[in-house]
Amino acid sequence: MENFNYYTPTKVVFGRGTEEQVGELVREQECKKVLVHYGSGSVKRSGLLDRIYGSLDAAGIEYISLGGVVPNPRLSLVYEGIRICKEEGVDFILAVGGGSVIDSAKAIGYGVANEGDVWDFYEKKRQAKACLPIGVVLTISAAGSEMSDSSVITNEDGWLKRGYSSDLGRARFAVMDPELTMTLPKYQTASGCTDIMMHTMERYFNQVENMELTDGISEHLIRTVMKNARILMDHPDDYNARAEVMWAGSLSHNGLTGCGTDGGDWASHQLEHELGGMFDVAHGAGLAAVWGSWARYVVDARPERFAQFAVNVMGVEKGTDEMETALRGIEAMEDFYRSVEMPVNIRELGVDPTDEQLHELAEKCSHFRKRTIGCVKKLDVDDMYRIYKNALG
Amino acid sequence: MENFNYYTPTKVVFGRGTEEQVGELVREQECKKVLVHYGSGSVKRSGLLDRIYGSLDAAGIEYISLGGVVPNPRLSLVYEGIRICKEEGVDFILAVGGGSVIDSAKAIGYGVANEGDVWDFYEKKRQAKACLPIGVVLTISAAGSEMSDSSVITNEDGWLKRGYSSDLGRARFAVMDPELTMTLPKYQTASGCTDIMMHTMERYFNQVENMELTDGISEHLIRTVMKNARILMDHPDDYNARAEVMWAGSLSHNGLTGCGTDGGDWASHQLEHELGGMFDVAHGAGLAAVWGSWARYVVDARPERFAQFAVNVMGVEKGTDEMETALRGIEAMEDFYRSVEMPVNIRELGVDPTDEQLHELAEKCSHFRKRTIGCVKKLDVDDMYRIYKNALG
Repeated sequence: MENFNYYTPTKVVFGRGTEEQVGELVREQECKKVLVHYGSGSVKRSGLLDRIYGSLDAAGIEYISLGGVVPNPRLSLVYEGIRICKEEGVDFILAVGGGSVIDSAKAIGYGVANEGDVWDFYEKKRQAKACLPIGVVLTISAAGSEMSDSSVITNEDGWLKRGYSSDLGRARFAVMDPELTMTLPKYQTASGCTDIMMHTMERYFNQVENMELTDGISEHLIRTVMKNARILMDHPDDYNARAEVMWAGSLSHNGLTGCGTDGGDWASHQLEHELGGMFDVAHGAGLAAVWGSWARYVVDARPERFAQFAVNVMGVEKGTDEMETALRGIEAMEDFYRSVEMPVNIRELGVDPTDEQLHELAEKCSHFRKRTIGCVKKLDVDDMYRIYKNALG
Repeated sequence: MENFNYYTPTKVVFGRGTEEQVGELVREQECKKVLVHYGSGSVKRSGLLDRIYGSLDAAGIEYISLGGVVPNPRLSLVYEGIRICKEEGVDFILAVGGGSVIDSAKAIGYGVANEGDVWDFYEKKRQAKACLPIGVVLTISAAGSEMSDSSVITNEDGWLKRGYSSDLGRARFAVMDPELTMTLPKYQTASGCTDIMMHTMERYFNQVENMELTDGISEHLIRTVMKNARILMDHPDDYNARAEVMWAGSLSHNGLTGCGTDGGDWASHQLEHELGGMFDVAHGAGLAAVWGSWARYVVDARPERFAQFAVNVMGVEKGTDEMETALRGIEAMEDFYRSVEMPVNIRELGVDPTDEQLHELAEKCSHFRKRTIGCVKKLDVDDMYRIYKNALG
């Protein structure tokens, strides 16, 4: 078992109608001026934004707004947010949306609180020393960014998608009302569930002797998300299923599922980041599309772990042959993805990269041959290319 | 599923040798003078206290010490701590020990940071408005106080044991090195494991439709503690077993196992608090002594929940009769207690209260007929007496 740090300072306010508390929660932060950051018009059309403005007004909080965050959030809007915050003296950012909006808010927070170009942090050139405080009203269960330390931004100059992680960026509070997620389309719901499962699976597949307590929590979390994802395909307004998925999303990525591990593999995420950067696909769907190819490529490095996954998570009967059990677990996961209409290869994602583009993805993913990814098996640029190629479908 | 808040700001630093980091962790808190608070001589004899002083010295932190905390920590020492902190200008308390030391530190923290008598908070006469910041070096896995919001103090004037819970008292950091717990005697280890399991079971037995994610985490946590408690009976220096139990102790009581519930029952804890106040027994052992009697007294109010517990936690085969399954689960839990040499009734605790004393316990536990306890079944003073009586053995 590895030593670990665990730090989740975010105050979670979970349940029906909790968005009414947002004004009070912001007031507790003793800030002067809030930037309300959001994405598309859906939070306007649903009336959520007006309810939040009402709550801020009632609490006597001054605010300005910046919408327009898109999936795979863009650096250009982050720069605009930084400029606005500096001009307007903003000292708190309220993200109303899903992972893209929260990640964009974190990036703005780093940009305002530190000198120089915020992209430096995402390029790992230097570390942030501070971040404006962030609050969240969550409308999409997926990224786990509401409790996590991470933020992923896409730089349109080269379409590079890069992540930056720091405890400084953890939200002060997260308002989580499962009812706000009921209007999400089926595809986005399933994509979110995949992302949640993958945040746990990335940590679960590692190269260390594991912590039993963490393992069991992770296995139960993945099973719970699968079960409720299936329910949501036919019953998108099932409150309990929405709530199970929403809370699983936070626990999956706040650090809990990594306690006692080496941090986990994360190769699938890195592979998907480049797909998302180049083709702008839904993150969770992209993960589903590459996972099977990744799993089959690395399974021989830790068949016993994949076999445990097969039995404890996927309900595969334990066979006499470990590798056979392991491979049946991978198939079972792909069957689950199909059952919630997720792709299991890149072409099913709706994109058809050329061989040249696959090489370009691998080059970018290896940071132009400057890094390997993964820990179950360390993957270099050639491995990455082969996994993309095998994932083509 | 109920709405819930979840707030666990404590920075956990977990694993071998982490106590070396304590000086740095205190320095991050930007305080001027630390009170190092501890219990018996064991932290002196083991050399732990000297290592901590060394770490504080290396970080340039000024400190004074106050030892002498006993199990069921006393209000008189709390008063002494408050006086010392005020005289010496202490602005941070470092608790080196288990739940008693941490709870005593929290009480001192409330006493220094608020006007008036600190006992008022424990008597629920008023709410604390602040608390000195607390840090923890944990040496006993049991109370979960290192991440919880609660503190339990015994007032020698009447031997009243009372708890106070507030987010203000949550520790800023908790250093958790499982190796520090290896020298604990068998009885204290088993008592600690019982306390940990009970923190989850108190929340698990409730009166609401439950959150599946929380249920599975709770069930796995209890199973993990039982398994590792058995290992520790024969192998007290098994690092992984100590680590599983230690982390379970924090997760059990930091709020995680209550998410989506009504908060849980807590009658067994209230019943034990009075036993501990009157007879000064080990808290976990006291819980084991009353739990079976409590469970049989209330099982008819929620047999389906006890049956789920029997099957998912205790591994009882699901029978056709729900109540029979439920009762077999209770028996199985008592068998577990016996297997780790815990008492299953009050006389096995080593005390033999008179009938008059049982009435006195019930009177005190009902706050002299001013409250009921429990939610599976609401218990009044007569119910309390009967549960104590049935638990006599």
